[in-house]
Amino acid sequence: MATYLITGASRGLGFEMVKALLQKPTSEVSTIFATIRGNPSPALQEVIDQSQGRVVTVKLEVSDDASITAAANDVKEKLAGRGLDVLINNAAIASMTPTPLTEAKTLENAFKVNVDAVHKITVAFLPLLREGTKKTVLNVSSIVGSITHTKKFMISPDHGYRISKAALNCLTSIFACELEEEGFTFVAVSPGWCQTDQGGPYADLDAKTGAKAVIEVLDRDTKLNGKFVNIKVAGWENASGLHQYNGADIEW
Amino acid sequence: MATYLITGASRGLGFEMVKALLQKPTSEVSTIFATIRGNPSPALQEVIDQSQGRVVTVKLEVSDDASITAAANDVKEKLAGRGLDVLINNAAIASMTPTPLTEAKTLENAFKVNVDAVHKITVAFLPLLREGTKKTVLNVSSIVGSITHTKKFMISPDHGYRISKAALNCLTSIFACELEEEGFTFVAVSPGWCQTDQGGPYADLDAKTGAKAVIEVLDRDTKLNGKFVNIKVAGWENASGLHQYNGADIEW
Repeated sequence: MATYLITGASRGLGFEMVKALLQKPTSEVSTIFATIRGNPSPALQEVIDQSQGRVVTVKLEVSDDASITAAANDVKEKLAGRGLDVLINNAAIASMTPTPLTEAKTLENAFKVNVDAVHKITVAFLPLLREGTKKTVLNVSSIVGSITHTKKFMISPDHGYRISKAALNCLTSIFACELEEEGFTFVAVSPGWCQTDQGGPYADLDAKTGAKAVIEVLDRDTKLNGKFVNIKVAGWENASGLHQYNGADIEW
Repeated sequence: MATYLITGASRGLGFEMVKALLQKPTSEVSTIFATIRGNPSPALQEVIDQSQGRVVTVKLEVSDDASITAAANDVKEKLAGRGLDVLINNAAIASMTPTPLTEAKTLENAFKVNVDAVHKITVAFLPLLREGTKKTVLNVSSIVGSITHTKKFMISPDHGYRISKAALNCLTSIFACELEEEGFTFVAVSPGWCQTDQGGPYADLDAKTGAKAVIEVLDRDTKLNGKFVNIKVAGWENASGLHQYNGADIEW
């Protein structure tokens, strides 16, 4: 009967995560709040229509403080006394134009959306999360933000995005330490390279597979708090490309 | 005969780094560009007056793009055809009010000054650095931005500062990979806890000792490019407090 909120749910991984959660029985997942900036896309509307009320949209422009406050109030009202169990900070921006760091213009905006907004959204939903039973925040990060693996991912088109994900990892780690005593779990997850608008058609995994594997991280019976983990996808554990989807912890 | 530029040189570690460089013979250090926001403090003015022209001030407001461009043009003119050998990105902000991350308001501004400005300044001075012989950029980071050590430094008052330093480490690492083939060295250095306005009077090291040890990192005969290192201070290698100044590499 848990309640979930996923930011950036209109397309890509966020949309597929909504669908992956919907596959679970109502006894496990009752309501999925799907935040979107405008109106639902036709595909999302179809999912909503078939969800028997389990998927509920919430308007949220993640880089707008007033919108964050309004969204938290909206969800609070809709929960009507229940708590929010799981927050999935998925919304993010990346530039798909390959640019060396010496020419990058994306740093400040990437930080604003991918880190600062995650901080503000988490803080805004904290009262509802404190009322929840799972007290879990999953931040969608990326292995391209692992400083240990900088050299390996120099092929990544957007270095501002990478820097923002390193910062997001630090944010996740500090929240994990700060709120551990309250029973919270904060985890950063790398979905790897998925076939979304952002990842392009040549990516390793279709978006459905990637999204399902991100959600499955929450089912692990190991302690997740403060970790940065890879998804696990059968057949991809020892792949020879840039990514191995082996479920392992990722070096910072 | 090398030329150095240090940002944030009016006080604290930046000011002490100017003095530490001035102790070196002219055959090693010819000119030290000391960037300041306004007019020189009386202490800096005294150093300038006694430097026999070796310390040259440059106006720079690091969070102002036009000021960065103007400073780079100013230094280019003053170098009169020579290159800039070493850039030390020292200017940074931190809030000294202990605030949990759930209440922090400092993230965006810390990123703007401690990461975005470092990026822009580095890019602005890159043409002059390419003309230099050392091609070295030292970014003053902090071990409190090591994600590996998050728990150890939860006592740190400003988590926004920590997140910015994790991002700065990623920036440093990407620059190191991108410009290695051109012969550049990018290194992130943690000065630890020094007695400056920022560090307060109870810090481990007086500012002079800390600044001298930061400069000494550049004298190491090991490869520094892409590293995040601790300073080394005699007698502090195995200290029992939060910091050990043992010169070791720091985990990201």
